[in-house]
Amino acid sequence: MSLKEVLGIELPIIQAPMAGVQGSALAVAVSNAGGLGSLPGAMLNIETLRDELSAITSQTDRPYNVNFFCHEMPEHSQKAEMIWRNALSPFYKAYSVDPDMVPVGSSRIPFNAKTAEVLEEFKPPVVSFHFGLPEEELLLQVKSFGAKVISSATTVEEALWLEEYGADVIIAQGVEAGGHRGMFLSHDLNSQMGTFALLPQIVDAVNVPVVAAGGIAEANGVVAAMELGAAGVQLGTAYLLCHEALTSPMHRTALESEGAKHTALTNIFTGRPARAIINLAMKELGPIHYGIPEFPLAASAITPLRTIMEAQGSGDFSPLWAGQNVTGCKAISAADLTHELASQL
Amino acid sequence: MSLKEVLGIELPIIQAPMAGVQGSALAVAVSNAGGLGSLPGAMLNIETLRDELSAITSQTDRPYNVNFFCHEMPEHSQKAEMIWRNALSPFYKAYSVDPDMVPVGSSRIPFNAKTAEVLEEFKPPVVSFHFGLPEEELLLQVKSFGAKVISSATTVEEALWLEEYGADVIIAQGVEAGGHRGMFLSHDLNSQMGTFALLPQIVDAVNVPVVAAGGIAEANGVVAAMELGAAGVQLGTAYLLCHEALTSPMHRTALESEGAKHTALTNIFTGRPARAIINLAMKELGPIHYGIPEFPLAASAITPLRTIMEAQGSGDFSPLWAGQNVTGCKAISAADLTHELASQL
Repeated sequence: MSLKEVLGIELPIIQAPMAGVQGSALAVAVSNAGGLGSLPGAMLNIETLRDELSAITSQTDRPYNVNFFCHEMPEHSQKAEMIWRNALSPFYKAYSVDPDMVPVGSSRIPFNAKTAEVLEEFKPPVVSFHFGLPEEELLLQVKSFGAKVISSATTVEEALWLEEYGADVIIAQGVEAGGHRGMFLSHDLNSQMGTFALLPQIVDAVNVPVVAAGGIAEANGVVAAMELGAAGVQLGTAYLLCHEALTSPMHRTALESEGAKHTALTNIFTGRPARAIINLAMKELGPIHYGIPEFPLAASAITPLRTIMEAQGSGDFSPLWAGQNVTGCKAISAADLTHELASQL
Repeated sequence: MSLKEVLGIELPIIQAPMAGVQGSALAVAVSNAGGLGSLPGAMLNIETLRDELSAITSQTDRPYNVNFFCHEMPEHSQKAEMIWRNALSPFYKAYSVDPDMVPVGSSRIPFNAKTAEVLEEFKPPVVSFHFGLPEEELLLQVKSFGAKVISSATTVEEALWLEEYGADVIIAQGVEAGGHRGMFLSHDLNSQMGTFALLPQIVDAVNVPVVAAGGIAEANGVVAAMELGAAGVQLGTAYLLCHEALTSPMHRTALESEGAKHTALTNIFTGRPARAIINLAMKELGPIHYGIPEFPLAASAITPLRTIMEAQGSGDFSPLWAGQNVTGCKAISAADLTHELASQL
């Protein structure tokens, strides 16, 4: 089955949902160009989610995707919180952050009944999830209004799980990919494979279409992924410099710098491993810091430092998400980039 | 420049040199099939090296490759040796190994004047190195008899370095690859990229032909790598089950097992990170054990345990080298495998 048949898109190019650096504008541009634009819903409140979906549906009649995280909220751990705040305390002191004013908890709420209700109003053609799939009742609700469901696998085991539990399309997320690893059956980073190894093994293992993600930057990468059996590709990093992206000037500068060649998987920004350009915080505190609060609870304690540093024009404590291949980042329109990526198909 | 022009081979397929699991027979078979067969010289004494080169030159008139490690021998560290022997001591006790009988040091000698003398006799058409390149005088000697020189890069920086110092062909070794990482400018595992990201970036950076390695298992992987700009491919894992390989029955069984899907980079067998199927020793002692003797000095202390366990038919302490994609391993002749891999070109 081609992605055209399953998702109704003209070009087998999915723009990866990237919470914090893009909204409806990028999604609309990619969908109107014939690819699948994605709205990251993971960090939106109900109000904004509704506004963004309205913005999309008023500007395109092509298929689009809305993405959510479906982690289980961990219990608050006093011990993990202490480990993390102790590690951060020299920086709190240096930048005059009062630890007592730093909130505990997180605003990243997993996909839930309220979000599903909003989706019911808009009936988005595609809904994608990160970290597995939501519980059965919610998944059935999403499927009941005709949405096709996508989720990411970082191992063959995860791909088989996703197929069994109802994913219509599976993204094979190679270790090259920027942002959060979609891993949900294992937390062992040794299990994470490069796209070249992961993609064909997932293609062999499942019957649903498989989309390649991780390391793809140019049109020849799209062709190479299709050669390895992909029905399409998903790119995030390549879209980060596009006019319609909301990538901060600081993040854009980092992506265009020599430093962008050096990324690592880090858990210090949220609690889960995600690939970012190596910055001061990752060097001093990570890239992997053991014992800190589980996703998404690690974010709260580091955020005040990020806020202070960003106000001074520094990305030293910002998550500068990027994959291992930033050579495809271009400061052009998302439509042009989408067409360029599909130009050798 | 094509590999045919530079190396004189018919098919752009290089059989990766794999010390300990193959000798001249595999190299001869691949070279006679039109690819580039490789003899791993890293663990051979002068006598055996000469015998193996004689065996190759008497059985093929096609180009072949002989490979050496060119690490610098580290100084013996009493502290590192203690850290490692302390970690191993419960296993020494359990298997009645007398630590006083365990030798210090290593038989893995880097490429040197004596090896170069033997090469002078045979004038191999291709010489490849792992861990950079030998010192200038030795390199010039190798080049003086007409050998083309190949080495592996795991980062763009390493590729630029190899080009500057005289490599005629560069292997882009993606993190998927089995066996030792060729890294030599940095020891930071975060710098290691998947083939999909590494290959096109190295292709962009250098002017010499680039060979893709890591994760390639089937004919479509060869095509995909060429699409990403590779002049050819190097495969090791895929050849491990071939009739001509000397892979032990235990290693073969492991490669055909479910366990082969789970590999990790480990330093416990030699001191440098290398990808192997996860076994008991890697679980209990690693996969990365900090503070142990530098390559190749870590090998001595773990070897007695390997010997004892192998005598009992167990690979619990053996380095079961494999890449992240064992699906291409086939118990067929190396000639048939080489032709299969090239069948879609």
